[in-house]
Amino acid sequence: MSRQGLTAGLAEAVRTSQPERAIAAMREAKKGLLDFTAASFAGREDKGIQKLLRLIEDEGGASLVPIIGQGKKAAPLQSAMLNGFIAHALDFDDVHSDVRGHPSAVIVPALMASAARGYDERLLGAYIVGVEVMARLGESIGGRHYEKGWHNTGTLGAIAAACAAGYAEELTQEELEKAIGFAATQSAGMRVQFGTEMKPLHAGLAAQAGLLAVKLAHSEFGGSRTALDGDTGFFGLYGDLEKAQNTLLNRWGAPWRIVKPGLWFKIYPFCSAAHHAADAVRKLVSEEAISAANTERIEVIFPPGGDAALTERSPKTGEEGRFSVEYVIALALHGHELNAEHFNSQPIPSVIQTTIGHIQRVYDNAIQAAPHAVPKGRFTIVRAYLSDGRICEARVDCPKGAPGNELSEEDIKEKLTLTVPHEKARHIITAVEKADIKEFLAHIG
Amino acid sequence: MSRQGLTAGLAEAVRTSQPERAIAAMREAKKGLLDFTAASFAGREDKGIQKLLRLIEDEGGASLVPIIGQGKKAAPLQSAMLNGFIAHALDFDDVHSDVRGHPSAVIVPALMASAARGYDERLLGAYIVGVEVMARLGESIGGRHYEKGWHNTGTLGAIAAACAAGYAEELTQEELEKAIGFAATQSAGMRVQFGTEMKPLHAGLAAQAGLLAVKLAHSEFGGSRTALDGDTGFFGLYGDLEKAQNTLLNRWGAPWRIVKPGLWFKIYPFCSAAHHAADAVRKLVSEEAISAANTERIEVIFPPGGDAALTERSPKTGEEGRFSVEYVIALALHGHELNAEHFNSQPIPSVIQTTIGHIQRVYDNAIQAAPHAVPKGRFTIVRAYLSDGRICEARVDCPKGAPGNELSEEDIKEKLTLTVPHEKARHIITAVEKADIKEFLAHIG
Repeated sequence: MSRQGLTAGLAEAVRTSQPERAIAAMREAKKGLLDFTAASFAGREDKGIQKLLRLIEDEGGASLVPIIGQGKKAAPLQSAMLNGFIAHALDFDDVHSDVRGHPSAVIVPALMASAARGYDERLLGAYIVGVEVMARLGESIGGRHYEKGWHNTGTLGAIAAACAAGYAEELTQEELEKAIGFAATQSAGMRVQFGTEMKPLHAGLAAQAGLLAVKLAHSEFGGSRTALDGDTGFFGLYGDLEKAQNTLLNRWGAPWRIVKPGLWFKIYPFCSAAHHAADAVRKLVSEEAISAANTERIEVIFPPGGDAALTERSPKTGEEGRFSVEYVIALALHGHELNAEHFNSQPIPSVIQTTIGHIQRVYDNAIQAAPHAVPKGRFTIVRAYLSDGRICEARVDCPKGAPGNELSEEDIKEKLTLTVPHEKARHIITAVEKADIKEFLAHIG
Repeated sequence: MSRQGLTAGLAEAVRTSQPERAIAAMREAKKGLLDFTAASFAGREDKGIQKLLRLIEDEGGASLVPIIGQGKKAAPLQSAMLNGFIAHALDFDDVHSDVRGHPSAVIVPALMASAARGYDERLLGAYIVGVEVMARLGESIGGRHYEKGWHNTGTLGAIAAACAAGYAEELTQEELEKAIGFAATQSAGMRVQFGTEMKPLHAGLAAQAGLLAVKLAHSEFGGSRTALDGDTGFFGLYGDLEKAQNTLLNRWGAPWRIVKPGLWFKIYPFCSAAHHAADAVRKLVSEEAISAANTERIEVIFPPGGDAALTERSPKTGEEGRFSVEYVIALALHGHELNAEHFNSQPIPSVIQTTIGHIQRVYDNAIQAAPHAVPKGRFTIVRAYLSDGRICEARVDCPKGAPGNELSEEDIKEKLTLTVPHEKARHIITAVEKADIKEFLAHIG
């Protein structure tokens, strides 16, 4: 443990960061921004957006910050909430294994609404710092945090967003310490909301809380400067103080967490915990020609707890299906592409429901995960029992998109052009390549 | 435990309440509204208000809801945050021993901003329901919740505010279940912020979160309908699920918690945990003529843990002094009135600091609290060792203002006229007596 407290130490690490000099980190930040845009545009017709737009229209507010893909602007705090929701609406946005949650959907909306000093490399740097903070919070808070029922995107996101925006706005040491505390004392989000519209709103609320924290610090509002420290501080209350003391500030930015383990850019619009099974079943469909017609039953095998995020065993709608490995496998067995149209609020057809009934989860703690597994210790085996007596299986430890099996820059640009109108996509790619964030914001609305 | 889940049971209890028929509860609600107004006006020049007003002015928003004592209006969600802060700014607002926190500072601002169906008895009924919910949440969450570091005003306030506003707006069963979940998943607030401006803002943020929850439910936003239930639900995560199952819905409204144990209306603008000592030292000053000049040292004796809220042993400012029993006693020893002017952001004079240095906390678990003690099990003894060798002491188990030693309606009207301009106070008293909340709102701004 550093002799400095955790809050002061984190503020100092953030404030004195120089991520703009790290070429690999800047490259990943640019990929992250493009993937964030692709995921957000893919969700831009989600019904929840209209509900939230009506809600903030009743409130009124200055039209200052673009709302992604809506051709509208809103007040800064409102925009953070709404853009966070849009980015995470389909669960198609990046995840990070240290976070056990979604960093960009919280950090980027807060940065879009911040009063940054420069809309250039510094804003990309702020994004790198935000990911660094959220990854370290995730590691430091300990595994029990998520397992108890917290949604890390919500509970860790506010502090990360505050640090990112605080870096962008060049807060002083004291302001940053207070901003961390203002964010910590707003940290919330429960996993019971998984499978509902409230889950993506957690990202928006965390972005809003982080931005409010920076605004309060800027206005010299009074607050604790040691909110992460001690038994009743953030780590003592939400997690594991001792672990935090050993890990939070250890080897800051060496390498940057946005580079290693890196962001996981998704190729499917559903919970990352089902991506292993999705890759596996697609392999069986294409290589072994398994289908709903010729398969009697499926076993899907996890290490114990490996399916904690997959809360829906009998989903009723595509939205709930984002958290159902059974639904994902059943879709593939029926020859469907695993794309956004199957994961909206429509009811799941009964023919798919029937197939879901033939899929069973199994836990096996004797099987070792591969050293390159993502997340660490995770694997999924899909085992099909065919009507002709054959049994075939496929195993995935590191799904496509995850670090170690990552999407290339070209893959991400392709993902972008699948969701964003062509002309707009071209402008956004050019703006991000030039680190011209003003131009990026001009086209994202 | 009811066979219904906790969330459904709470929603049903709220929805089917008929508090308007309970004469004693309605009388207490009227007293509560007047005391809320008095406490808010007492804090209307607090410096934090200007900081928050500037912050929301940057956001813009519709001018719809009055901001107490400021001659301004703001958008509903903004007003809930700001009015909650104002009500709790001086810590002069009511507390409730079941809550271990401040119900009215959260519930009333949410109701002021809600789209209630009727601005008459129904809104007073909604206030009674809100207090009922917050008291039961406080009892059900268990004592460990506060001790671990949560600030109950923040963590319990959002659900209470959502239930109050949900009752006022006549939400359906499903809407109310979801609103409870939307509030639960935003529940936050850490005690490390005690003694700073962030502490009163917790009341405002909880009011805002509760109001947002109702707005989301109204707009058919999707969310969990069972957020209080199960190991990963609200009680499992923040408190004690088993205790909640036994107490949350037991004997709802019989009697209403606003009547028994009832709200504690304060006669001093500082943390209620120091009120026993304040009454005791004032008694010694007036009856035994003790003073800073003739007293060598003071012992202030609590049951173990009885001073948990009194986090400041060496306060630097009057604001920190709101949580310092030492400061309160030292002020009295120097002949000062214990009024708002001593509890602002000004530094504490060195002569008072010196006296603070002669005051020592002592814990005695052999002493029994009186049966009528408020809160249950609490007492404080102030023991003075005088320079002439005399030792004198005073003991208080139920301070002035607390249930059992309560302020009369006349006392509260007097408290109101001390802080609110005369003409305004007259209008407000008449409006509250007639349950004309439109008129009340017309004069509170």
